[in-house]
Amino acid sequence: MKNTLTAAVILIGNELLSGSIEDKNLSHIAKTLEVRGIRVRETRIIPDIENEIVETVNTLRAKHDYVFTTGGIGPTHDDITSDSIAAAFGVKNVLVQDVFDTIQTYLNSKGVEFTPAAQRMAHAPEGAQMINTDHSIIPGYRIGNVFVMAGVPRIMRMMLDGIIEHLETGFAIHNAYVHANVGEGEIAAALEEIQNQHPDVDIGSYPQDKGSSLSEYRVIFVAKGTNKDELEQTCDEILQACANGGYDAIKV
Amino acid sequence: MKNTLTAAVILIGNELLSGSIEDKNLSHIAKTLEVRGIRVRETRIIPDIENEIVETVNTLRAKHDYVFTTGGIGPTHDDITSDSIAAAFGVKNVLVQDVFDTIQTYLNSKGVEFTPAAQRMAHAPEGAQMINTDHSIIPGYRIGNVFVMAGVPRIMRMMLDGIIEHLETGFAIHNAYVHANVGEGEIAAALEEIQNQHPDVDIGSYPQDKGSSLSEYRVIFVAKGTNKDELEQTCDEILQACANGGYDAIKV
Repeated sequence: MKNTLTAAVILIGNELLSGSIEDKNLSHIAKTLEVRGIRVRETRIIPDIENEIVETVNTLRAKHDYVFTTGGIGPTHDDITSDSIAAAFGVKNVLVQDVFDTIQTYLNSKGVEFTPAAQRMAHAPEGAQMINTDHSIIPGYRIGNVFVMAGVPRIMRMMLDGIIEHLETGFAIHNAYVHANVGEGEIAAALEEIQNQHPDVDIGSYPQDKGSSLSEYRVIFVAKGTNKDELEQTCDEILQACANGGYDAIKV
Repeated sequence: MKNTLTAAVILIGNELLSGSIEDKNLSHIAKTLEVRGIRVRETRIIPDIENEIVETVNTLRAKHDYVFTTGGIGPTHDDITSDSIAAAFGVKNVLVQDVFDTIQTYLNSKGVEFTPAAQRMAHAPEGAQMINTDHSIIPGYRIGNVFVMAGVPRIMRMMLDGIIEHLETGFAIHNAYVHANVGEGEIAAALEEIQNQHPDVDIGSYPQDKGSSLSEYRVIFVAKGTNKDELEQTCDEILQACANGGYDAIKV
């Protein structure tokens, strides 16, 4: 897609791989970045194991404009993301005094002890730029082109809100939709021809399960791209292809 | 973890990376495999691009006992999984006559044309073993240690049900839970000590957002492993650690 930047997302946590928890972050990150012209091109879900985090971060930061991680920055034994990111960059994971003071003040006000374990949350790789927000006492941070965020969705969203304005952006990616009562197999040839006519548009086709809450139609077509006029034209052509076959379809 | 096999999952589809659709398959696959002693060790979400599918499949099938893919086996232009899997194994993507006949009979009974596009669904890499189920007219298939399934959750689940009995299994992985009203930072040191005492148990700690439907307690601890007695003991030790600090906790 023209004039867009690329990103990778790394979701860190054994609990995501074991199915104990379903990820709720990727979709939000992807949609938030897309309107700023940054496309998520690949995502990896990996366990809380240092050498796997190091290898994944180093592979993906070399391939993409940005890398976003979620998870593993709490106080428990399996929260090893900051140690691992530091190792990936070949620097130490050091105490950040500002963050330490903020957390200490907060915990004092609650009458909670600031344990050595909790103090790990006041550490970040040397040279990292903390990204403070008004809403979270523990900031996300940036090192190189890597942004490190919490795994808990509510906190991750606050951190992402704080990060966004620090990003270079591309041309916003837009979406246009057609809902149709047609089998995918019946329209596939026409759809492929339309796709070939519009190489800068990314056309997807998503069959709806019976009882889907998304649409009462059988298939949703999504056209994505940076040129709104071309998206409109693409959808008009999909509508026309449906009409030619005698299938019911609408732009949404 | 002792006596378990490892698996990787590859979720294929632009729509998952753009946030248009949230994956509903990983958690189900992980839980289904876990009770059979197969652990999902990593997951990658990749776009509908042949060389990325080829490279990812070849990397992961060399690293793990099993690889499971979802998505990209429908009839449209972006359904390139079978072509790509064939390329990964260096074989042709060929018509499977049985499957062709079954789909043709089904579509005929519905009065729907069996278009050339739809006929792509009757193809699989040469040498693949089709895995028929009673419930889906389009089978998943196995080639080497790679299992290829649909992306639509309802269909994926049918295919997985058909696949399971073809898998070697390890020792079943069990879960035991403690819910507690404690801050993670307050219990982290004790928890790390318990983890160190039980290297074959995987202890996770998951803070609950306010209003979480999972628990009214602040943190859920999950102990995973193949030895039920050791899981019970681990949970008893976590309960004791909470009690020592004056925190309320229960086994669930």
